[in-house]
Amino acid sequence: MDFPAHVIITEVGPRDGLQMERRVVPTDIKVALIADLVAAGVSAIQVAAFVHPEKMPQMADAEAVISRLPGHGDVAYSALTLNLRGVERACRTAVPWIEVSLSASDAHSRQNTGLTVVQARAATGAMIDLAVRSGRRVRGSVQCAFGHLTPGDIAVDRVVRMAVGLIDQGVEQLVLADTTGLANPVLVRQMLAALLPKVGSVPLGLHLHDTHGLGLVNVMAALEMGIDRFDTALGGLGGCPFVDGAAGNIATEDTLHLLHALSISTGVDPALVAVWSRRLSAFFEHLLPGKRYRWI
Amino acid sequence: MDFPAHVIITEVGPRDGLQMERRVVPTDIKVALIADLVAAGVSAIQVAAFVHPEKMPQMADAEAVISRLPGHGDVAYSALTLNLRGVERACRTAVPWIEVSLSASDAHSRQNTGLTVVQARAATGAMIDLAVRSGRRVRGSVQCAFGHLTPGDIAVDRVVRMAVGLIDQGVEQLVLADTTGLANPVLVRQMLAALLPKVGSVPLGLHLHDTHGLGLVNVMAALEMGIDRFDTALGGLGGCPFVDGAAGNIATEDTLHLLHALSISTGVDPALVAVWSRRLSAFFEHLLPGKRYRWI
Repeated sequence: MDFPAHVIITEVGPRDGLQMERRVVPTDIKVALIADLVAAGVSAIQVAAFVHPEKMPQMADAEAVISRLPGHGDVAYSALTLNLRGVERACRTAVPWIEVSLSASDAHSRQNTGLTVVQARAATGAMIDLAVRSGRRVRGSVQCAFGHLTPGDIAVDRVVRMAVGLIDQGVEQLVLADTTGLANPVLVRQMLAALLPKVGSVPLGLHLHDTHGLGLVNVMAALEMGIDRFDTALGGLGGCPFVDGAAGNIATEDTLHLLHALSISTGVDPALVAVWSRRLSAFFEHLLPGKRYRWI
Repeated sequence: MDFPAHVIITEVGPRDGLQMERRVVPTDIKVALIADLVAAGVSAIQVAAFVHPEKMPQMADAEAVISRLPGHGDVAYSALTLNLRGVERACRTAVPWIEVSLSASDAHSRQNTGLTVVQARAATGAMIDLAVRSGRRVRGSVQCAFGHLTPGDIAVDRVVRMAVGLIDQGVEQLVLADTTGLANPVLVRQMLAALLPKVGSVPLGLHLHDTHGLGLVNVMAALEMGIDRFDTALGGLGGCPFVDGAAGNIATEDTLHLLHALSISTGVDPALVAVWSRRLSAFFEHLLPGKRYRWI
């Protein structure tokens, strides 16, 4: 099998992970976590979201977190935005990467943003424009890329069109997100076979959830197709906060365990990441769904 | 990829799963569980262990459970034995399959049975003899097949020799067990590449644990090598009872979810299995490590 020799992990725990928890993590702890992730060798970290502070108090300190990031020129810090106002806020900070997303499902788009897919597309166009004009680089993700309510209920062509559309609008990195945890190896292969020939030199990554236990199996399928970028969250943070151990993002440590077993380099020391998974497990007073962090 | 068209699941929850729990499951509940597993389409079930009742009170009702098994001629019921006395007890019941095991690790063998590997080998010889003379079929497993303390710390040749030795001693089915959860796709491929040419027509299955999160990734690797038999436990039972959500056997529902996504038939309805995972989760008052049972 022809795996990539090196894989880039984007650690999304500080954003996608922490925002799913009821207990708000103080800015000091977030900054210490991010500094230690950098020390562990993580080269891309989603550090904050610019969203309404009342809707998501977990992310209310986005500006403060970014103002205190350890100054490592090599680390691709990114922040999520959902609308133009979020991009405006992000552009007043020093964050180099801004993430925008578009749902491939009309129902999910309306639910999440109040916009139809067509409206959302116009919105991301304006958001990307502003970000690029402000000297930022943009990461664009397609939500529900492997289905919304049932596996594969979103047509492959539709996802491909939306992904290519994001590239046309100016994103420099593309992510397919399995928002509702429906991906399986067959769907991953189908989607990548259709999309990879269309993305040119734009790096394509996957954002997978372990909702139904297939997270790492999907990583394997993607590796076999040459994918070398994955979003992961330390300890598998990002699950439903009301269900102890409910699966969230694929766990950073488990993913690293697999990659390193396959002799794929990542530059990341999983044991240093696991220290924080155990700390956050204690802080949130519940077990995290990842497996490997408990052992290293 | 050339997957098998059909996979046989051996449900080990009633034995390997329940024996790891502190709370002893009453015989009535075990019998109802097994009957419903049969109704769900499971065709092979490990139902009991003939071990010292004081050492393992969870299995003290082995005879009672077997005397009350639903009489389905097609279901391969099996019981675990650790010594000759266990085989003698098993042979006084109607259980058609007897399982014996041999550890590939000297340290693990001594720890577990007080016997060196050489002594244990002589013991399994006598156990298999008695079982076969009593008209039983024997399933033989090699424990620690992918390592004892670190991945791959047991030589492939050694495992192959022990597996072939079990066939010579009369087992009709062979199982490689990842007792300490150390397998990874590279080790699985190496081991199967070495062993498969040596087993002739004896069916070879894998008994995997999800200790470090690689359970289903290892299933994928094995499927790609043509393996069509896996031991699984409903809800992923079989983890450490002292750690909530600690991973045990690969979960039946998660494994079925993967197999069915790959269009591999199993004859098993995962939703019917999941009913019991949720019941047992409530009975044990802790979350089970499987993911899929929570959703179906």
